[in-house]
Amino acid sequence: MSLVLDAAAQDLLFREARTANTFTDEPVTDEQVQAIHDLVKYGPTSMNQSPLRVTLVRSPEARERLVQHMSEGNRSKTATAPLVAILSADNEFHEELPRLFPHFPQAKDMFAADRSMRENNAALNATLQAAYFIVGVRAAGLAAGPMTGCDLEGIRKEFLDDDHTPLMVVNIGRPGQDAWFPRSPRPEYDQVVTTV
Amino acid sequence: MSLVLDAAAQDLLFREARTANTFTDEPVTDEQVQAIHDLVKYGPTSMNQSPLRVTLVRSPEARERLVQHMSEGNRSKTATAPLVAILSADNEFHEELPRLFPHFPQAKDMFAADRSMRENNAALNATLQAAYFIVGVRAAGLAAGPMTGCDLEGIRKEFLDDDHTPLMVVNIGRPGQDAWFPRSPRPEYDQVVTTV
Repeated sequence: MSLVLDAAAQDLLFREARTANTFTDEPVTDEQVQAIHDLVKYGPTSMNQSPLRVTLVRSPEARERLVQHMSEGNRSKTATAPLVAILSADNEFHEELPRLFPHFPQAKDMFAADRSMRENNAALNATLQAAYFIVGVRAAGLAAGPMTGCDLEGIRKEFLDDDHTPLMVVNIGRPGQDAWFPRSPRPEYDQVVTTV
Repeated sequence: MSLVLDAAAQDLLFREARTANTFTDEPVTDEQVQAIHDLVKYGPTSMNQSPLRVTLVRSPEARERLVQHMSEGNRSKTATAPLVAILSADNEFHEELPRLFPHFPQAKDMFAADRSMRENNAALNATLQAAYFIVGVRAAGLAAGPMTGCDLEGIRKEFLDDDHTPLMVVNIGRPGQDAWFPRSPRPEYDQVVTTV
C-alpha cells in the first residue's frame, strides 16, 4: 500500500463516504461550516484565486424558493436536508487578488480587462474548490449530497447576481435511513491512466 | 473543533500541504499512481460519470514535447519533476455509463444526442476529479504542482484527440529545496459564506 494517509481517514473521505439522499434531523451548525472552511480554504487554486462562494440556505422561506428550482427527483431531499448550500463562482474574484496574491501586483489588472478570461478561471477554480468543500463536509463527519439537477440560471436570478455563476447545490447532514443506493462501479485504472 | 478528520490527515491534505515548485530525484512509481486512483475513484461525480483521464508523461521524448507547451515560468519545473501528468476530460464518457450507472440505462442515449451537454458535464466533473486527484497525490505523501499556465490547445493536439479536453498539467514528486513561496493569505469566512 503506497498511501501515507491513515486508513480511517481514507474511509471517512473516500472509501466509505457516500452521496446521501436522506438525512437525520440533526442540525448542521455555523460552527461546523466555519471548521470546514478553515480546512479547505487551503486547497490550491490558480494564483490563489479562491473564487468559490457559498450561500447557506437557512430560512424556511429561502428553502422553499430554492426547492422550486430543483429537478423533480431532487426536491424532497432538498426540502428536508438539515442544511443546503449553493456553491457559486465569483467572476469578480480579481478584486481580491492584491490581498490573496500579493507577490504579483499586476494580477488584478490582468484580469480586469477580460471578463471572459475571468469567467473561465472562476469556473475552473471554484469547481476545484467545490470538490475540496465536499471533502471538507466529509472531514466534519457529515454526508454531502451534491446536485447539478436544477435550474442553475433560475437559482442565479433568485439568489445571486450577474457576477456569480452557480455550480451546484449541496445537501449536508448526517445520513438518514436508506441514505444511498448500492455503490456503482468505478472505472478501472487502465481506462483512466495511460502512459506516454 | 468541529472536524472528525484527525489532525495529521488535516495537515497532510490541506494545512501543511503546498504546491511544490521544486522536487527531489526520487521517482514516482506506477504503484503509487495506482494507489492514488484506487482512493480517489470514489469521489462523487454527477451520475458517476467519472470523466477524468490521466496521461502520465514518462518518456524523455514526450516530456520534451510537453515542456514546449508550458508557459516560460513553468518550463524548468515541468522538465525536472519526477512525474508529470496531463489531466483531461473525456467528452465520450457516456460510452461507459451502462457499466458505471447501471440503474439508469437511458443515461448513455441521453448524452449521445448532445455533444455540448457532454462537454459541459465532462468539464465540471473532470474538474471535481482533478481536485480529488490533487488530494490523492497528497494522501500518497507526495506534493502536487498543478499548472494551468500552458497552451492547452497545443497539448490537446500533441497528446490527446478531439474527444479529450485538457484541464491542467500536474507535477508530482517529493518537494525539493525551496519548494514553495510563503503561503498566501486565504479569504475570510465572511467573504466566502453568506446566509439567506
